[in-house]
This record gives sequence, structure tokens and C-alpha cells, in this order.
Amino acid sequence: MGTFIGHISPGLAFLSFGVLYAFKYSLMVLRGEEIQLVSRSRPRGFRGCLKRIPAEGVMKIVYGTLAVMAEFFYPPGVYKLVIYNKEKPDYPFIHPNEWQHVTMYSYFALSGWMDIISQACLPRRLFLLESIAITLAFYIEALLLYSHMHGKERVENSVHTLLLLACFLVCLILTAEIWRPNDHVLWFTKTCLVMTQGTWLLHAAFILYRPFTGKAWKSDDMANLMFVTNFFCWHVALNIILLVVIFSLTALWYRRCDHAFQEAKRKVSLHLKSADGTGLPSEYTKLQPDEEETQLLQECDF
Amino acid sequence: MGTFIGHISPGLAFLSFGVLYAFKYSLMVLRGEEIQLVSRSRPRGFRGCLKRIPAEGVMKIVYGTLAVMAEFFYPPGVYKLVIYNKEKPDYPFIHPNEWQHVTMYSYFALSGWMDIISQACLPRRLFLLESIAITLAFYIEALLLYSHMHGKERVENSVHTLLLLACFLVCLILTAEIWRPNDHVLWFTKTCLVMTQGTWLLHAAFILYRPFTGKAWKSDDMANLMFVTNFFCWHVALNIILLVVIFSLTALWYRRCDHAFQEAKRKVSLHLKSADGTGLPSEYTKLQPDEEETQLLQECDF
Amino acid sequence: MGTFIGHISPGLAFLSFGVLYAFKYSLMVLRGEEIQLVSRSRPRGFRGCLKRIPAEGVMKIVYGTLAVMAEFFYPPGVYKLVIYNKEKPDYPFIHPNEWQHVTMYSYFALSGWMDIISQACLPRRLFLLESIAITLAFYIEALLLYSHMHGKERVENSVHTLLLLACFLVCLILTAEIWRPNDHVLWFTKTCLVMTQGTWLLHAAFILYRPFTGKAWKSDDMANLMFVTNFFCWHVALNIILLVVIFSLTALWYRRCDHAFQEAKRKVSLHLKSADGTGLPSEYTKLQPDEEETQLLQECDF
Amino acid sequence: MGTFIGHISPGLAFLSFGVLYAFKYSLMVLRGEEIQLVSRSRPRGFRGCLKRIPAEGVMKIVYGTLAVMAEFFYPPGVYKLVIYNKEKPDYPFIHPNEWQHVTMYSYFALSGWMDIISQACLPRRLFLLESIAITLAFYIEALLLYSHMHGKERVENSVHTLLLLACFLVCLILTAEIWRPNDHVLWFTKTCLVMTQGTWLLHAAFILYRPFTGKAWKSDDMANLMFVTNFFCWHVALNIILLVVIFSLTALWYRRCDHAFQEAKRKVSLHLKSADGTGLPSEYTKLQPDEEETQLLQECDF
Repeated sequence: MGTFIGHISPGLAFLSFGVLYAFKYSLMVLRGEEIQLVSRSRPRGFRGCLKRIPAEGVMKIVYGTLAVMAEFFYPPGVYKLVIYNKEKPDYPFIHPNEWQHVTMYSYFALSGWMDIISQACLPRRLFLLESIAITLAFYIEALLLYSHMHGKERVENSVHTLLLLACFLVCLILTAEIWRPNDHVLWFTKTCLVMTQGTWLLHAAFILYRPFTGKAWKSDDMANLMFVTNFFCWHVALNIILLVVIFSLTALWYRRCDHAFQEAKRKVSLHLKSADGTGLPSEYTKLQPDEEETQLLQECDF
Repeated sequence: MGTFIGHISPGLAFLSFGVLYAFKYSLMVLRGEEIQLVSRSRPRGFRGCLKRIPAEGVMKIVYGTLAVMAEFFYPPGVYKLVIYNKEKPDYPFIHPNEWQHVTMYSYFALSGWMDIISQACLPRRLFLLESIAITLAFYIEALLLYSHMHGKERVENSVHTLLLLACFLVCLILTAEIWRPNDHVLWFTKTCLVMTQGTWLLHAAFILYRPFTGKAWKSDDMANLMFVTNFFCWHVALNIILLVVIFSLTALWYRRCDHAFQEAKRKVSLHLKSADGTGLPSEYTKLQPDEEETQLLQECDF
Repeated sequence: MGTFIGHISPGLAFLSFGVLYAFKYSLMVLRGEEIQLVSRSRPRGFRGCLKRIPAEGVMKIVYGTLAVMAEFFYPPGVYKLVIYNKEKPDYPFIHPNEWQHVTMYSYFALSGWMDIISQACLPRRLFLLESIAITLAFYIEALLLYSHMHGKERVENSVHTLLLLACFLVCLILTAEIWRPNDHVLWFTKTCLVMTQGTWLLHAAFILYRPFTGKAWKSDDMANLMFVTNFFCWHVALNIILLVVIFSLTALWYRRCDHAFQEAKRKVSLHLKSADGTGLPSEYTKLQPDEEETQLLQECDF
Repeated sequence: MGTFIGHISPGLAFLSFGVLYAFKYSLMVLRGEEIQLVSRSRPRGFRGCLKRIPAEGVMKIVYGTLAVMAEFFYPPGVYKLVIYNKEKPDYPFIHPNEWQHVTMYSYFALSGWMDIISQACLPRRLFLLESIAITLAFYIEALLLYSHMHGKERVENSVHTLLLLACFLVCLILTAEIWRPNDHVLWFTKTCLVMTQGTWLLHAAFILYRPFTGKAWKSDDMANLMFVTNFFCWHVALNIILLVVIFSLTALWYRRCDHAFQEAKRKVSLHLKSADGTGLPSEYTKLQPDEEETQLLQECDF
């Protein structure tokens, strides 16, 4: 939908994914976890399958499907699920914007289905398939964004070009991640760019449909085009700060809660072992926080 | 030929190659085979040479040569094997489309000859030469497609730009394959893109020469340009589904037939060995399917 | 500032950084030093922190902050810290050039703060963070330079395009350096390009605001556009020569002073050791300059 | 010189370098030689220095200097060593084409000087410096070719764009060679592209200045633009054939002469050794040609 709400909703979706990624990757870095390309064999059965369904996958499907519905049937009373106008003599195509949006959203929904299939249903999680599905979704988004610009005003084009830039960089990073799935720099750059896409779409909604001055931006004023780029650069800075804040919060929480929890778990298991007379709990409880920090920092780097 | 049949026939050619690749690479992944850069020494002689002639190479030569013939002499009675018009005073070039097509097809035919020379005639198969020949054919196709667009309508250009995109991505992947010939992700991405080129050419033939409404697409209607990109995105999805179907069929067939066949072969050889009193057939027949599957999945990933 | 001084001052800043890099990397190559991704733990405390503050970081902050001030308040009496004109009815944006420059300078200043935080304040130096900050600053510069060209004359655009080219190449090299921080070819190519940006900005100031003939370059004269590129190529050569001169001077100084100094230090420590009767000073003083040179040359290469 | 001879002479220069490369790399592949990044220490002195002067370096300097002279002083009586017209009131730049050509040629001449300095004068050959110098020369050529096209006819631009394409691909390959100096695929692709630049410049001279019909190609005829690309594709094929012929000739010569020569040399040295009663000449003379061939083929591949 080329409307205010049609830019706000995908903006919020991208932003929420970005924030989700930020927490996820921060925690993985702090815990020193790595992505497993092929997980171990898992118990089969419908129950185990249901338990393993990932939140990310469900989010993608729900957002994607809702967005597709909205394109066709929102606001209520509208029905746009037609591809050409039967009433005119030469059957011209109609609703090109809507169909392009639907295609984009469908690919993201498909990526969600692939996440669920890989993480929950298959006997083993195939990370590569999930990775390829989301990469494809962003490439399709880039291609459609590019073609989306035909016959628009210069300000609108400028806004979309910058969105395309962020999207295309995400594509490149995702492609690199297929072969380097555990590179921390790629993780956080991707996260920041996805969040930037989100906040930029929110801003774009206001620029294009609810300008603060109440009047549309003039397309023939070069100052406008230059300020669009300028605002985008500020969004990048803003999202980097957001990312740093999220990382810090996660680190804080990790040191207090997660760490204590895992310590407790370890102690219990050691206690059980020592009951057998073979464990050496004293060594393990003397864990020096300084030592661990060093290790974390090093993992943080590559 | 800038005609309906001139787009349908290369479309079918690309599609058939894509499908051939899909079966070939699926089977290679299932069997855990790898491409040998330099094969072992082979028996010389004309007979051995004839036996080793690859279907793929012959297909390329036949398709390429037929297409070259068709450009010049089809429909019957036409004769276009001239490069400039001798009748006009300044000898202008004629048939530029035909000569560009002929150049493209010739490079694919040459790649076919290289396949045959490398796989059948040389004392050793030099995979690198075949690889370079097909890469070159796609680069030449990309270059000519780019120059093909001079002075065409916007819809036709849009259709060709998307074809060029698929072609150029194939070029990039083939270039990467020269140094990474056994990367499974590259194999299947390439296959999917070649199939997409095929189905897109089929669709393009209808868009440009037999529109379903009976009237040519208007070039000044932005909706048309946006729908062209949209259709292309659907072709990508379609071909991914086709690829998954082919992989599944191959896997099904492999587990039933090929597997059994190789099992039988192994048993026979073991039987022969055990006749010598040294073999241990019992161990081999206890092959656990679960174990093998794990291995397959891992190979599947990288 | 789209003025003479507004091009001279960033030109001098880039040139001084380039020269600083040239000396720094020359010395690192001669000494065989390598960049440490994560340094060892450092003594905490405010004093140690102050001592470790890097000159490069302070330079970036001072230059960046001064430039931001100058954009808004120079020449004295000017006040440009407003983003839109409140007096006109539709609140048009004003000072787009100034705000773009401010954004650029701020990112460089931020990179300076990151240098200080990483090198002086954190318990360990995190080279990766500094590296990402400077890379980001150059990417933002490239993006703003690109958008800077809207609605300018052809000669001015040509000048800025070449600046953008140098800037973009620096971006690519900095991106590569995130994963290959110790590649000598990348070090010196980056240095040369940063110096070229500097001298080119100086030249650009004269071309655009103080042409030697006293008359502005005509934008519709192709010879002008061709000579702009030509001059840029000469700047590249000039800066390569400058780089060679700096390397030679550093090498000369290194052999005389630094070398002698380190020799002296070593001798003292050996003397102390030999006092214990365990050292073998005779072996160490026989250091053959030829041997060392070989090693240096090899290090020089990769 | 934007003249017939001004395109013929650089064409011949590129072609002769391509052919030289073709022989050099063929021989290196056949002998299994590799490029040494840093050679061993060499005897100093003026004589040894003179003996080591490489033909390639001298060729570059001679070609480059002659071309620079020709730009300024050919045909005799012409004097173009001026950069602006002093007679006109606003001192406009003149001879932009000539100065761009001079810049190009100078960089190639500089690369020649660097070859000589590195291979003959320095205590050790620094291959990296030669490699960087020639890479830079091609990048400068690409940049100037790009700017060369301002304000030209479409046919001329098309011809130069294709030249730029070949030149830019050479740049990319040379950049890759800085880190992978012994990759055989890169060697021969580079050689082929340099030869293509050569033959294409020869053809371009005829297209632009001596068309076979006696009349200039019309710029508004799309068929002309399409045939320009077509001809370029044929040049690529032509040069691949030329490369294969040169490799075959070298291989033939290598098996007959070079091989026999080295055999002889080895026998002599073995004879000398066996005179001491320690050598085992019999083993060495039984060299099986089949065995060697296998090795050669494998080296041929990577």
C-alpha cells in the first residue's frame, strides 16, 4: 500500500526483527555460542516438533501473511485481489504496487516456513536452508524496490534508493554469511542495517505521507534531496547507538542472571558428581571473572 | 530471430539444461561424488573415445548448430547469411539481431566441443577447460544481451534486463566455480538461475509476441514495467519449487534403485573376496540407513 | 562551506592524516610490527588512561569539532545552526551543504572518540572497534559526496566524482582491512588514497573558487572535463612520489637513530644479564646488517 | 592522437605485450616455474645490473617514450607541448586528448622503469613493486578511457566502452594477482584480454578513421552499435585461438629443444657427480615421458 500505514507497518516489522537479532547475537557472543550448520539428531514426534517451533519463524509468517491480507483487503471493503481490469477493453494491469508488496511479503513468509521446517520438523536442523531462504527474500526485496521506483517523484525515489542501499548491503552480508556463518562483524552489521531499514521506513512514512509542515516536499528543490540523504546518515548513527545499548543491556543481564543460572546448574551437576567421590568442585567454584572476561573479549573480536 | 519461436527455442534449451543440471547435481550430492579437476589416465583409441562422449556436450552442439542454422535460413526460403547490404550505396550492416544470436549460439556450441574434447579425446579429462569454456559462453551472452537493448521499447528492455540479471549472476557463479568447483550452494544456485533463464524466455516470448490480451503491452504504462519484474520474481519461486521436486524425485529413486544396485555390486565383490577367506561380508551388510542419512545431510551442507 | 576555505581545510586535514599514516606504517614495516587485534590487559586508573591518549584520535576530534563550528559560525557573525527557514510559509530546508558537511565531520570526530575510548579507557584496546568506526566515517562521506552532487555544474560534479572515487576505494580497502588488518599493500594503498583526497581537495578549491585565469571554468567545454581527470591522475603520481620519499626518510632515520637506540637498549639488558654470568653478549653484537635487511624486505612484501 | 596511427600504434604495443606474455606464461607453466615474490640476493655492480635488464621493461619504456614524443611532435612540425592557449583571452585548455594519452603512456613507461629498477638494480628483485606499478598503469588507463568519452559520437563511445571493459577486467585480474601471483587461470585470462585490447584497437582504428566502405559509420543507426559489440566478441574468440596456438608452439618447442637442453645439462652434472662415485645416473636417464606429462597437466590446472 502506498500509504502512511503501508510504510509504518513494514518499518515496525523490520525494526522488531532488528531488535530481536540484536538481543540474539549479543547473547550468542557473550555465551560464546556458534551457529551449528547441521545440528544433532532430534527426537521425532509431533510434540517435540511443536516445542521447537522458533519465535522468529512464526513472527515472519504472521507479519508476512497479515501484510499480504492488508494489501488486498485493507481498509475493509477494498478488494484488490485482481491482476488486470476486466472492464477496460485492453485488460490493463492494475494494482502493481500492491502485487509487488505481496510478492515481497510472501518471500519473507516463505522464509518463516523454512525456519519452522528446518528447526522443528526435519530430523536435523539444516541451518543452510534457512540462511538461503532469508537471503533470497532480501534479494527479491532489492529487485522489487529497484523496479518500484519507475515513474515516481524525485523525493520518493531518493527515499527508496536509500532503502534499497540498506537492503542491498543486507543481501551482500547474507550472501557472505552462507560461507562464513559465524563472523561477528557480519552479524552486527546485518543487525544494524535491518534496524536502519526499519527506522528509515518509519521516517519515510512521515516524509511521504505526513510531512510535519503539512505540505508535501517539493521534488525540484535540491535541498530536499540533500536532506533526505542527511537524515539517512543520522538514522545509521541512531541505530548504532541503539545496538550498543542493547548489547550493554544484554551484557548486564547476562552477568547477573544468565551467568548465575548457569553457575548454579554447573554446581548442581558437580555436586552430583562429587557424591560419587570423583568430582573436584573446589576447582570449578574458583572461576575468576577476570579470566573469563578476557576470553569473551577475544571471542568478541573474531 | 526476434520472433516468437526465436525466444521459445532458446528458452527450451536453457530449461532442458537446467533440468539436466538439477538431476546431475542432485545425484552427485546424494552419492557424495566430487568433481575431479584432472581425471586419471584413460585408455586411448577411437572406440573408448566414442564411448565417453558426454550427452551434455552433444546437446550443446546440436542445439547451438540448429539455432545458428535457424537464424540464417528459417523460415525456409530466407537467406540471412549476409552482413551488409550490397545494394545500398553506403553498404549498411543488416541483420544485427541475427548475427548477435549466432555469436551467442556459437560460443555455446564451442563449449560443447570443448566438453567432448576434454571428456572423450584428451588422454585426461581437463575439467578446468570445460569450466572456462562455459563461463566464457555466458559472459559473451551477457555482453550481447546488454548491447541487444539499444533502441528497443521499454517493456522489451525490461524483459531483457531481467534476463541479463539472471545471466550475469550465472557468470559470477561460474567464475567462482573455477576456484571452488565442489561448492554445493553454487551448484544449485546456478541450476536454478539457468532454469529461470529458460522459463523467463518462454514467458518473454508470450509477453513480446503473443500477449494473452491480443494487444501489445504499452511501453509508457508504468504498471506494465512493474509487473514484468513481479512476474520474474514468481519465476524464481517456481523454479526453486521445480528444483526441490527434482531433488526429491532423485533422492527417492536413489534410495530405491541406485542404492540397491550399488549394494548388489558391493555384495558380489565381497562375496568374491570372502571366497578367498579374507573378506568380512557380515559387517558390510549391516549398513544402517540412519547412519548414512546423517552423512548425506552433512555433505548436503557444504 | 561551499567556499575556498571550506575545501582547503578538509584538504589539509586529509593530507595531514595521510602523511601521519605514511610515517606510522613505514615505521611499522621497518620494525616488523603487527597490529594486535586485542591488546594485553593494561593498568587501570585515570593517569594511565591520560598517558595512552593517541595523537591521531585527538587530531580527529579537534579537526572534526573545529570544522563543525566553522560550518555553523564562520565567518564570524554568521549563524547557520538552523535546519529550516521559519520565515517562509512552507518551512523549506536551508543550508543543505552545511548540514551534510557537519554530518561528515561528526562521523570523523566520533571515530576519534572511539580511538580514545579503545586505546586509552577500555581495559583492553579493541582494534576492531576503531577499525569499524573509521570505515563507517568513510562510507558516510562517500554517501554524502554522492548526494552532494545534485544540481551542481558539470565541472564541479566531475571534481567531486573523482573525490568520491578515491573515497570509495578507501572504503573498500578499510572493509578489507577489518578481516586482513596486517596486509602491507592495503596499508600503503589506503595511505596514498587518503593523501590524494587531501591534495585533490586543495586543488579543487583553486579550480572551483580561485581559478588561476581569474575566470570560472566553463562547464560546457569538454576539454575542461577531460583535464580534470588528467590532473587527478597526476595527483596520484605526485602522492606516490611523496609516499616513497616519506618511506625513504623513515628508513634512513630508522637505520641511524631508532636502530641504534634499540641496539643500545639490548646491549644494556645483555650487560645486565652477563653480569649474572649467563648471557652471551658477543653473539648479539655481531648482528649482520645484511641479514636483517633480507628479513625486512621479506616482511615488506606480505 | 585521435588519428588512425594514434590507434594503430598502441594497438600494436598491447598486442606485442600480449604475445610476449603468452610465450612467457606458456613456458613457465610447461617448466613448472613459479614467480618468486622476493628473489635471492644478487651480485652487485654495474655489469651485473646491465645484464639483468629485462626486455619487457625496456619495451615499455621505449614504446611509452616514443608514444609521448609522437603525441606532442608528430607529424613533424607539430608542437603540442602546451596546456592552454595563451592567445585567447580566457586561456582555455587545449589538446585534452593528447595530454590524456601522454598521461597513460607515462604510467606505462614508469612501470617499465620500475621493472628495471626491481629486476636489475635493487639488491633483490621485489616482484610486488613491479606488480603494483603495472596494475596502477591499467587503472589509470581505465580512468582516462572513461573520461575520454565525454562529448564523442555514439559509435566512438561504443568502441571505447568495450576497450574500457577489457581494460577494467585486466585491472581486476592484476589486483587479484597481487595476492595470488601464481594462479594460472589469472595469467592466461590476463594475457588474452591484453591481446584483445591490442587487436580491438587495431580494428577501432579502421572503424573510426578508415572504414572499409569509405564512409564514416552512422551514429544513429542501432545496427552499427550492435555490430560493434558483435565484432568485439569475435575478437575475443580470435585471441583465444591465438593463445592456444602460441601455447601449442611453445609446448612443441619445449619438448624438442628446451627439454633436450635441460636433459643434457642434467646428464653432464650427473656425470660429474658419478665421477665421484656417489651419483646414480642410471635412475635419472630412465625418465618416463608419460610420468612427466601427468605432472604437467596437473600443474596446468592450478
